[in-house]
Amino acid sequence: MLNNINEARLKAMNLKELLALSEELRENITQSVLKNGGHLSSNLGTVELTVALHYVFDLPKDKIIFDVGHQCYSHKLLSGRSLSALRQLGGVSGFPKREESFFDCYNTGHAGTSVSAALGMAKARDLSGDDYNVIAVIGDGSFNNGLVYEAFNSLRLLNTRVLVILNDNGMSIAPTVGSMHEYLEILSHDMAHDEKKERHAKIFERFGFGYDGVYDGNDLEKMITKLTEVKERLKTESVILHILTKKGKGYEFCEENPEETHGISASGIQKADFNSVAPVTEYSQMLGKKLCSLAEKNSKIVAVTAAMTSGLGLSEFFEVFPDRAVDVGICEEHATILCASMAAAGYKPYYAVYSTFLQRSFDEIIIDVCGMNLPVTLCVDRAGISGADGETHQGVFDLSYLSLIPNLTVAVPKDVREFEKMLEFSEHFNAPLAIRYPRESVKIFGETSEIVAGKWEYLVRGSGKYAVIACGERALGYALNAGEILRKNGVEITVINARFVKPLDSEMLLNLTEKYIVTVEDNMLIGGFGALVDAFYSESGKIIKNVAYADKFITHGSVKKLMNEYGVSEESIIGFVEKYENR
Amino acid sequence: MLNNINEARLKAMNLKELLALSEELRENITQSVLKNGGHLSSNLGTVELTVALHYVFDLPKDKIIFDVGHQCYSHKLLSGRSLSALRQLGGVSGFPKREESFFDCYNTGHAGTSVSAALGMAKARDLSGDDYNVIAVIGDGSFNNGLVYEAFNSLRLLNTRVLVILNDNGMSIAPTVGSMHEYLEILSHDMAHDEKKERHAKIFERFGFGYDGVYDGNDLEKMITKLTEVKERLKTESVILHILTKKGKGYEFCEENPEETHGISASGIQKADFNSVAPVTEYSQMLGKKLCSLAEKNSKIVAVTAAMTSGLGLSEFFEVFPDRAVDVGICEEHATILCASMAAAGYKPYYAVYSTFLQRSFDEIIIDVCGMNLPVTLCVDRAGISGADGETHQGVFDLSYLSLIPNLTVAVPKDVREFEKMLEFSEHFNAPLAIRYPRESVKIFGETSEIVAGKWEYLVRGSGKYAVIACGERALGYALNAGEILRKNGVEITVINARFVKPLDSEMLLNLTEKYIVTVEDNMLIGGFGALVDAFYSESGKIIKNVAYADKFITHGSVKKLMNEYGVSEESIIGFVEKYENR
Repeated sequence: MLNNINEARLKAMNLKELLALSEELRENITQSVLKNGGHLSSNLGTVELTVALHYVFDLPKDKIIFDVGHQCYSHKLLSGRSLSALRQLGGVSGFPKREESFFDCYNTGHAGTSVSAALGMAKARDLSGDDYNVIAVIGDGSFNNGLVYEAFNSLRLLNTRVLVILNDNGMSIAPTVGSMHEYLEILSHDMAHDEKKERHAKIFERFGFGYDGVYDGNDLEKMITKLTEVKERLKTESVILHILTKKGKGYEFCEENPEETHGISASGIQKADFNSVAPVTEYSQMLGKKLCSLAEKNSKIVAVTAAMTSGLGLSEFFEVFPDRAVDVGICEEHATILCASMAAAGYKPYYAVYSTFLQRSFDEIIIDVCGMNLPVTLCVDRAGISGADGETHQGVFDLSYLSLIPNLTVAVPKDVREFEKMLEFSEHFNAPLAIRYPRESVKIFGETSEIVAGKWEYLVRGSGKYAVIACGERALGYALNAGEILRKNGVEITVINARFVKPLDSEMLLNLTEKYIVTVEDNMLIGGFGALVDAFYSESGKIIKNVAYADKFITHGSVKKLMNEYGVSEESIIGFVEKYENR
Repeated sequence: MLNNINEARLKAMNLKELLALSEELRENITQSVLKNGGHLSSNLGTVELTVALHYVFDLPKDKIIFDVGHQCYSHKLLSGRSLSALRQLGGVSGFPKREESFFDCYNTGHAGTSVSAALGMAKARDLSGDDYNVIAVIGDGSFNNGLVYEAFNSLRLLNTRVLVILNDNGMSIAPTVGSMHEYLEILSHDMAHDEKKERHAKIFERFGFGYDGVYDGNDLEKMITKLTEVKERLKTESVILHILTKKGKGYEFCEENPEETHGISASGIQKADFNSVAPVTEYSQMLGKKLCSLAEKNSKIVAVTAAMTSGLGLSEFFEVFPDRAVDVGICEEHATILCASMAAAGYKPYYAVYSTFLQRSFDEIIIDVCGMNLPVTLCVDRAGISGADGETHQGVFDLSYLSLIPNLTVAVPKDVREFEKMLEFSEHFNAPLAIRYPRESVKIFGETSEIVAGKWEYLVRGSGKYAVIACGERALGYALNAGEILRKNGVEITVINARFVKPLDSEMLLNLTEKYIVTVEDNMLIGGFGALVDAFYSESGKIIKNVAYADKFITHGSVKKLMNEYGVSEESIIGFVEKYENR
């Protein structure tokens, strides 16, 4: 049925056909995710809801905003898109994308934005005198984020009408935490045990929402009935529809392992990219292992996460040191301030977070952590291009937005062993420190010399004309490969491991005799590592090429393909050297 | 009494003496603020509360965190500091500063951080087995910020005890807005009209707080009694103490004009700094005037602010176009998404905000505004050094953190007339645009040529050896002054007005024959305008000096003194030219 689906055909279906369509969606999603990687259990849980939304509302005239957006696969299929090349370069994105379809009205990727966005759209509708409906679909995990509260708080002020569908499955990626979650559980419990109970929830009514819940979001018939009712109600007021769905619905393995099946990697895609010779410990595993061993002897070490504990490698830490481990849910700003204040009170906090989500903490890193020069260590995972999740998840800005902050030292390990040494170094480093690293670890570049703040190391000494200065495993991989190729062509280049992006190793830079310099990094060109080197040498007359990402958002695809596509490759390095060698 | 004040003497006072002390505080604060500028009405409102806190609690063992921190003057005086050089270079800061006193345990400046910080401190206390109290003092304006919700949501999770004093005066700088504010008003009303009513508020209890309120926070005796009770209660639970205070208490003019007397400028300090010859329209006045005239003809224009409407010059806009004007309260992230979503629905939003507070929206500018390439205009006021408010309020990072974002055009007007032209230009610019400008406008640099995205203009043509490229009124002022001085010494330098920091005028840069370049800006060196020019010229062999702020947090003081102190001055420009002229 999916082959020729459109809104008219879908609206003509009877319940039995809609149920069959749901099963087809479920099958298609599962096959696509197993092939390409992607979000599985959250999409399986929202099939019936999405079918009902398309059946009851008039898309794309009515607007649906999916919070975070990882649960939009059914919506993509129902709006005529194929998942066969899901998350691959050229295929559809795993998140809503306006440029893909009129059915996607607002791009998402980070948590908690949907209610704000719905309010803005509804306000614009009111101003224009249009009459479409605006719907935010938000999970209970996102509900922890402060943005949702800010949006709720302004509903009456904006004097508009939206539908918020609270898709409650008890999980973010990990189980949801916090008092709002407990409150939602109480509501669910009350409703389940007293069918006649008046369906209301004061806390939401205070903010001006009518509340209706709690219903089984995997019951298609029920969803159609409720959405039809709510659509009518929306003519005069804003409504929260609270539904319960089962993450992974329809596949026993997913239902029983919702955290493990939240995000699935296409088998081996990431690794194959980099021609790994032998399996190496991942950075996240190293973080977990090392932090446990440090914390065993140092009772001041605490770990803070924002709903990503497992992906960050910290599950064991949370089990072994429950008192010194805090997962605050999807509250990146609050997590950062908790770290700053614990540091102010004498503790040694490690805030582990994905690079893209750390953007939310930008102001708190400036004001709280660095403004007070507090010894918080930011463990910045998924740095550089993260790949298949696309624009909203690439960790390519961190070297730029972190290096501009006073008092912050920024370290980039060349490999997972150096990462281990940097973690040892961090324990006694009494100031703000960020260590950024990619997801996969595929190479070890020999021994690691002692870590000293702001000190780099030579990996290869060349003939004195060209130096390549690179930071991080991926960039160094390209630098060393380029060096090998150039050596075969008779040119010996120096290769330097810039273990600290800030401060730069000014002593090494001042003594560097090479006139032609290449910088390489897995980050944007603007404001990144190369730009720091350019500024350092601005009065020197050196000839410098910065190999880094061009000033564009980076789409989804495999890491290596994207790196090359956006400007980071061996060829960029070799091209520069050959240009000056041939003069 | 203030002369010899310490905790022991204060605790030995009787009520009459404490009341006299309060009056002395009030007098001292008023005189200091009238002399030096600073926050007046909020400090007058919290005198009794602060005296009671010092009387009942054991400072500095117990920890008080003042949200935003602008209400800490009584606390500074009671902890033995003088306000005689308040906010001046070398004098005390207008905000809490750990480096000033042990009585300041946590630096603040931006809204909503105090409850998170209190929780982190309390958690650290529990882990160490210490027994001090942790108190957050937060106004109802800050209570709108999502951070407060994130902190509340994790109270039970952290399993600790804090006191939150909700200092409710119905104002941020402007009157507080939103549903939480309405809820607080209901509570205040109920309590005032039914003294015997059980004092509780479900919404807070849901989050694990005991609630006690509402009381007159300007009644010293009452405050002492209540805090003594609450201190006992804190041994077993977290408490919200809800009090009402009167902003400006004790001075009729302040009580009647709390918004106007929230922040007071020391008369003429800012202006005198720059030797203004004649009064010129301020940038904020121009924004208000121009936006009104554009909006009159263009019904798609909307304006959004986050509790700063008057300071941004938008009061008239809000009066004339109430439907198209939104003040969401202190919710910078939500404000940004509202703009993005209204733009997605066909509107033309202007988000006006102080540079330092825009840091809170960093992620939303990336993901929502620029990720979808939406025509939102960011009007970034108080950019560059803002002066007397110090570290937490300097707008010196924006050129760095904005220029790294793809799709964003960053404009910097040379004077208020060029600002007007840029606003005209913005109306038809169909992509994300930031325009950044300082508070004061003191100079007009002749005519302004037509604004074209990414196109600069020559202000002075030199002899072809040196070019100074500067952005913004202050930097151009230094550039032109330096040019004058050098001309008298027989050196003719080119001066260029870099009206766009992004994109750079690559055509002009490529054609520039001068070998020696100076960049000048009112921003950090790292990642700023100069760094963009360095990167552009990295392969060119040009000799470049970047005049910008060194990599340090910038303290409080007068604008011009601070600019010179942190590296931006005529001398820096002249010094570079002389160095190469004498070779």
